[in-house]
Amino acid sequence: MSKFIKKVSKKVGLHPGALVAIDEPKHQKVKITAIQYDKDNFQEKQIQTIEESLSCKKENAVLWLNINSVSNVDVIKDIAQFYKIHPLVLEDIMSTGHRPKMEQHGEYVLVILKMLYCSGKKKEILSEQISLILGPNYVLSLQEVEGDVFDAVRDRIRKGVGQVRNLGADYLLHILMDAIVDNYFVVLEKLGDRIEILEEQIITDVKPQVATEVHLLKREIIYLRKQIWPMREVLSGLQRGDSKVISRSVDIYLRDVYDHIIQIMDTIESFRDILAGMHDIYLSTMSNRMNEVMKVLTIFASIFIPLTFIAGVYGMNFKYMPELDSHIGYFVVWGIMIIVAGTMVIYFRRKRWL
Amino acid sequence: MSKFIKKVSKKVGLHPGALVAIDEPKHQKVKITAIQYDKDNFQEKQIQTIEESLSCKKENAVLWLNINSVSNVDVIKDIAQFYKIHPLVLEDIMSTGHRPKMEQHGEYVLVILKMLYCSGKKKEILSEQISLILGPNYVLSLQEVEGDVFDAVRDRIRKGVGQVRNLGADYLLHILMDAIVDNYFVVLEKLGDRIEILEEQIITDVKPQVATEVHLLKREIIYLRKQIWPMREVLSGLQRGDSKVISRSVDIYLRDVYDHIIQIMDTIESFRDILAGMHDIYLSTMSNRMNEVMKVLTIFASIFIPLTFIAGVYGMNFKYMPELDSHIGYFVVWGIMIIVAGTMVIYFRRKRWL
Amino acid sequence: MSKFIKKVSKKVGLHPGALVAIDEPKHQKVKITAIQYDKDNFQEKQIQTIEESLSCKKENAVLWLNINSVSNVDVIKDIAQFYKIHPLVLEDIMSTGHRPKMEQHGEYVLVILKMLYCSGKKKEILSEQISLILGPNYVLSLQEVEGDVFDAVRDRIRKGVGQVRNLGADYLLHILMDAIVDNYFVVLEKLGDRIEILEEQIITDVKPQVATEVHLLKREIIYLRKQIWPMREVLSGLQRGDSKVISRSVDIYLRDVYDHIIQIMDTIESFRDILAGMHDIYLSTMSNRMNEVMKVLTIFASIFIPLTFIAGVYGMNFKYMPELDSHIGYFVVWGIMIIVAGTMVIYFRRKRWL
Amino acid sequence: MSKFIKKVSKKVGLHPGALVAIDEPKHQKVKITAIQYDKDNFQEKQIQTIEESLSCKKENAVLWLNINSVSNVDVIKDIAQFYKIHPLVLEDIMSTGHRPKMEQHGEYVLVILKMLYCSGKKKEILSEQISLILGPNYVLSLQEVEGDVFDAVRDRIRKGVGQVRNLGADYLLHILMDAIVDNYFVVLEKLGDRIEILEEQIITDVKPQVATEVHLLKREIIYLRKQIWPMREVLSGLQRGDSKVISRSVDIYLRDVYDHIIQIMDTIESFRDILAGMHDIYLSTMSNRMNEVMKVLTIFASIFIPLTFIAGVYGMNFKYMPELDSHIGYFVVWGIMIIVAGTMVIYFRRKRWL
Amino acid sequence: MSKFIKKVSKKVGLHPGALVAIDEPKHQKVKITAIQYDKDNFQEKQIQTIEESLSCKKENAVLWLNINSVSNVDVIKDIAQFYKIHPLVLEDIMSTGHRPKMEQHGEYVLVILKMLYCSGKKKEILSEQISLILGPNYVLSLQEVEGDVFDAVRDRIRKGVGQVRNLGADYLLHILMDAIVDNYFVVLEKLGDRIEILEEQIITDVKPQVATEVHLLKREIIYLRKQIWPMREVLSGLQRGDSKVISRSVDIYLRDVYDHIIQIMDTIESFRDILAGMHDIYLSTMSNRMNEVMKVLTIFASIFIPLTFIAGVYGMNFKYMPELDSHIGYFVVWGIMIIVAGTMVIYFRRKRWL
Repeated sequence: MSKFIKKVSKKVGLHPGALVAIDEPKHQKVKITAIQYDKDNFQEKQIQTIEESLSCKKENAVLWLNINSVSNVDVIKDIAQFYKIHPLVLEDIMSTGHRPKMEQHGEYVLVILKMLYCSGKKKEILSEQISLILGPNYVLSLQEVEGDVFDAVRDRIRKGVGQVRNLGADYLLHILMDAIVDNYFVVLEKLGDRIEILEEQIITDVKPQVATEVHLLKREIIYLRKQIWPMREVLSGLQRGDSKVISRSVDIYLRDVYDHIIQIMDTIESFRDILAGMHDIYLSTMSNRMNEVMKVLTIFASIFIPLTFIAGVYGMNFKYMPELDSHIGYFVVWGIMIIVAGTMVIYFRRKRWL
Repeated sequence: MSKFIKKVSKKVGLHPGALVAIDEPKHQKVKITAIQYDKDNFQEKQIQTIEESLSCKKENAVLWLNINSVSNVDVIKDIAQFYKIHPLVLEDIMSTGHRPKMEQHGEYVLVILKMLYCSGKKKEILSEQISLILGPNYVLSLQEVEGDVFDAVRDRIRKGVGQVRNLGADYLLHILMDAIVDNYFVVLEKLGDRIEILEEQIITDVKPQVATEVHLLKREIIYLRKQIWPMREVLSGLQRGDSKVISRSVDIYLRDVYDHIIQIMDTIESFRDILAGMHDIYLSTMSNRMNEVMKVLTIFASIFIPLTFIAGVYGMNFKYMPELDSHIGYFVVWGIMIIVAGTMVIYFRRKRWL
Repeated sequence: MSKFIKKVSKKVGLHPGALVAIDEPKHQKVKITAIQYDKDNFQEKQIQTIEESLSCKKENAVLWLNINSVSNVDVIKDIAQFYKIHPLVLEDIMSTGHRPKMEQHGEYVLVILKMLYCSGKKKEILSEQISLILGPNYVLSLQEVEGDVFDAVRDRIRKGVGQVRNLGADYLLHILMDAIVDNYFVVLEKLGDRIEILEEQIITDVKPQVATEVHLLKREIIYLRKQIWPMREVLSGLQRGDSKVISRSVDIYLRDVYDHIIQIMDTIESFRDILAGMHDIYLSTMSNRMNEVMKVLTIFASIFIPLTFIAGVYGMNFKYMPELDSHIGYFVVWGIMIIVAGTMVIYFRRKRWL
Repeated sequence: MSKFIKKVSKKVGLHPGALVAIDEPKHQKVKITAIQYDKDNFQEKQIQTIEESLSCKKENAVLWLNINSVSNVDVIKDIAQFYKIHPLVLEDIMSTGHRPKMEQHGEYVLVILKMLYCSGKKKEILSEQISLILGPNYVLSLQEVEGDVFDAVRDRIRKGVGQVRNLGADYLLHILMDAIVDNYFVVLEKLGDRIEILEEQIITDVKPQVATEVHLLKREIIYLRKQIWPMREVLSGLQRGDSKVISRSVDIYLRDVYDHIIQIMDTIESFRDILAGMHDIYLSTMSNRMNEVMKVLTIFASIFIPLTFIAGVYGMNFKYMPELDSHIGYFVVWGIMIIVAGTMVIYFRRKRWL
Repeated sequence: MSKFIKKVSKKVGLHPGALVAIDEPKHQKVKITAIQYDKDNFQEKQIQTIEESLSCKKENAVLWLNINSVSNVDVIKDIAQFYKIHPLVLEDIMSTGHRPKMEQHGEYVLVILKMLYCSGKKKEILSEQISLILGPNYVLSLQEVEGDVFDAVRDRIRKGVGQVRNLGADYLLHILMDAIVDNYFVVLEKLGDRIEILEEQIITDVKPQVATEVHLLKREIIYLRKQIWPMREVLSGLQRGDSKVISRSVDIYLRDVYDHIIQIMDTIESFRDILAGMHDIYLSTMSNRMNEVMKVLTIFASIFIPLTFIAGVYGMNFKYMPELDSHIGYFVVWGIMIIVAGTMVIYFRRKRWL
């Protein structure tokens, strides 16, 4: 449940725009990586303070500043000062339970996204908030914790693969978002595999815990949906927007990301439908099994209870029971019992229970 | 159910705009608190009549008048007179079963909201209607009963934390709404905790009353949804609106509150989905258990009923039953019975019932 | 079912605009009440013909003509003639199974509504169609049968309470609609009470007929929804409309009625959700009970069937059964039977069935 | 199922606009009826070829040409030629599995509708596609088979009832559509009756086949919905449209038909909701009955199985069973058995099973 | 599941627009067919390279280039070069898990569709992505594998049937899409047949595997829906679009295809509703059967268990049991047993269980 709502109680009552790092100790070590490049040059270094990043800023080069924990209040304040970010924007960046959104401010554009990835063994889906700020010639990316899906992007910038070195900061924003969204597909694929396995199990051999697993998968889907749904608005906002920092030449790339989001949403909706159907089939199977169990019971009970009764009758100790004295009595009773049993069997055959 | 619809029968037939205090005795004691502040000054006092508040009104200072019960007709009439409020608006304020809404009138803006909070031990969600009237330089807040979520706001004004003392009455309206909406998160968190506990119970150890609890949670969610849903329109109305009393500089703050409302609605929808799923899993578990119970019964009955029949046969008192005279008859019968029982056990093993 | 669709077969094939009184004998006695008022004067009388109403018509005074049965074709034709109403409008008025709607015609505005009220003992919800025609200085109200929710309105006009005598015919239209909509709240309140009682029953002590009652309540809700839903369009049509006969000063009052309709729709949707939830909880409870019944059966059968088998074995009449001759045989068998029963009890305890 | 999708395989691969009569033999006899009228004259005759209809065409008179089978390719081609109809339009007319739609072409307007009626004894709902082409001064109506709902319309034209003889071809189009839509009400009424009967049965005395009947009714509703839903667009298209052949004076009549369609859709939605509710109540009733059956079984089994066990014990043939020798043993056992049975009865009373 | 999401992991991290053939070996043999025609001429040949196609290009003739596998990177690169296609467009064409879409670029229009067909014996629905690029005077069609639904189209071009030789490349695009969409109907028909058969089975004779089959059909429907739904946007985009390469004269044909898509979506929705209903009826039938099974068990058990008990009583071996000595005792007991059995039978008759 904690995935669905962040504990925000400590923030209640603070003035809007008050910076409080939520969920993490306050002065955690921050790791800042600065990548600066233009058509011909490429520079990458670890820096300690935001000032540093400014000192080496070149005209026309694109600067990508990756800040690895948003919980250090001092660093965030520095950013606010140097890049003239509105305090409310900073608050959004630091409160990590935020809904994906996109906001145009005068000089910069804020994009808040969820980075999704599957962790090692248990393949649980993890979500991390990432805030991207696109200004003229720079992109700031602020992550909750270390580890991201940008390694391939860094590689491409280093090696100058594709157009990234020829185009501006807005194209860098695009490829970062593209990397995040491409990873959604990986997550969906994992989910798809789990659904497929579960479906296989339900059809061939239902076990009780399957229902719980279907429920847990449903919850993952609900969670994913909540995270990804607002991305539509983010992307269409970026396309429609008339911000100075996004040139129209990037529009075709943004449309491409938008198409991916739509496709992901389609797939999520299909998964929901399929999981709903799996619950149905689970109930049907259970109902079937119950039927089968009951039939076995009914057949045994209905055949042997009358026979037991007949046997019981001739087990009575009455002084005068004429049948008992008959020499063939015993065999006649056997005969009657066989006829009764046979009739029952025929009856159940007729009903198709046997 | 009374949460879903207020008893309005006594009002039926009154002319529109007729002021009748609903639900409470008519001349209840009213508590009015006036807070007046500008950049340099701050004044807070309890007052008795609305006139008092006017007498000490300063040019350019922001006045916040908090009226603590809307059921005193005289006070409400005074307000109407001094602040030139339309009678229909007053009627809306006094009828406490109102839907959240926002209305622009010439000189002022009316905002009706629900203040939600969890009460002490039982942690039941309570709802109180609060009406905010924003005029030039003043905000009136009219509550149903004493006790609110504004203590932190008062503190901030007193101490001049943040921008509140620098900005106008429209910013005050914003921070009041922000305080109310922030408290929604607290309520959701409580609900989230209850859902989590219930989910835990359903998966590990279902008890019959769980179904009732899921139902009651669903009802709380339905109620919350009904209260919060119209807030979207309220907020977007305030942003879009062209009222003179709201300056455009407050827009970014209103957008922030709007984002919170959207996030709350998303979470409520997720809760609905999860609760629906919990009912499904509850039914599945019940179905499973029934199956297990029936299997136990069927296995016992199907093994022992035939055996009992065999025993019954040789308990018959026929004069001539050749088996009975055999010395090994008893042991042969035991053998047969063991074979029959063994066959049944193998049969149930094959069916995976054992 | 007859509530959902009126028998219209007899009308099929008539030319559009053909006037046929549906559902009632053709020349029923009609009761026409004329109320005429302005700021200073008030006049109320029963009249026989429409001409009468015209003869005494004063300049500037508002005339409210209430016609109590729409089934008298002659009277309706007179109205058409004197007030120049389009034949199709008259047809709409006379066919009482109509959907609420609002139509602007050149000189007048037609509003068709449903008047809902609960009848005496059984508290069944009844619906009656009422057509309101607003022209310059007059309002015609055409009801299906006698008895309405306008007594308070009449009283207010007589006594000049509120603004009704100062404002025009459009305000009269508003207070008539307001009276009708206020009565919807009374109906909802009744329904809310019934739902509450039913919910109480379902949680504490389910009886089979509860399912039927839930179903019947659902049907009432579906019916209400169908009647009230189109009222949104009616009200927003009146607000948006640019008809000459509605002055803009009445807009604030119409918005108030619109808000009420939205609130009613919200409540109806909540009721639907709650009733759906009640069916779920009903099924859960039934499933629980079945489980309990089956457990009792299984426990009894599983304990005693094996014991009965043991007793049966030693009831056999074989000549040579060594145990029978043993002096302690009987007590040993009792011991075995107690051990078997004890084992079963422990087994069921483990399974938490006991 | 065949109602939901027409067999179109033979058409796949033909060029668009290729005329192939589907479902019927190719050169079936066609029946063409021409009705021509103006204010003063009326003429009706059976004709053989389309040319004939043209020869007697008068200036200003309205011509209604009713073609009774669309499967004769030659006649359709003639129509195309004389009235200059686009080949794609003709294809639409001839493929009878079409969705209702409305298309404006330069000189004419095409309206494709479904004519619904209940056939004789089984009261099954039948659907027939009818295409109406409105040109200046003429209406072509092309039906699939003989028999329609227009007899009353023909009568009215013949006798000059209402306005039909005074108004143009567009009004004729309206009354044809009105006749078709009025018949929808008849169909709904029939369905409503069947639903009512079924509901009665479900509440009083459920039989297994009721579930199947509910399912079949649901299918009819789904089918109806699919046929009628697009009619909204057809009607609003006709109203909005700026075709020369529809004068604005007909708008009020079209709005009337539009209102009917909305009302029909409302009723269909209500029917869906009610049928969904009926399945719920059916499951509840079944669940109830099962409960009752199980209770009877459990009560009998739980009372008599222990008693049978006791009897079994004293039926054992041990040499040494002290109770057997007691003179009051038999009566004591009876006493014990009565106490056991009594205890069980009290237990079941407490559980409210008796 | 693999139908719902393509394995895209290998692509993650590549720069946008990087061309990688997914799912197939990289340098597969490509088959390119060039068809060139104008009013009078027609030419068709297999070519090896894209250059070839250009060399023989005539002014004013329409060129249709059909490329049969999109997995050959070299060929795709050639196309990009000769026809000046944007790299992102090529990426879309090569990644075969794409959502249907339509994009206008300066000189050409891209349409990505799904070609659906049923494969031979198992009649499984297969889906293949096809990309159509419409430029001035040419259409490129890029398919995943060999085999398509265009044979009839090729025939029509060869023989000059219909208007295809008179109209431009945009009309060719239309007839290709028309052929694809017409084939959807064939697929739906197949599905409809399977649904009909299943429905027949469910009503007459339910087998457990029916539930699984309903589930699988549901999945097919979900899949179809996902593939076809976006086609609406594609078609309306083509109609609305202001691309130079589509002349307005083709609009009426595009509208025709659009209508077909709407009709297909309607049918798919109907299928969903019907399948949902089939699950309901399946559960009802199962519930019914269980009821019947339980009744049989209950009747047998409830009649014979008490009788067995009576027999058991008189099988007891007490020394002093007065009834046993009675000469008529045995017959009296038979009488009692018959009375008890008869009472039970009457009781079950009353309950309508017999």
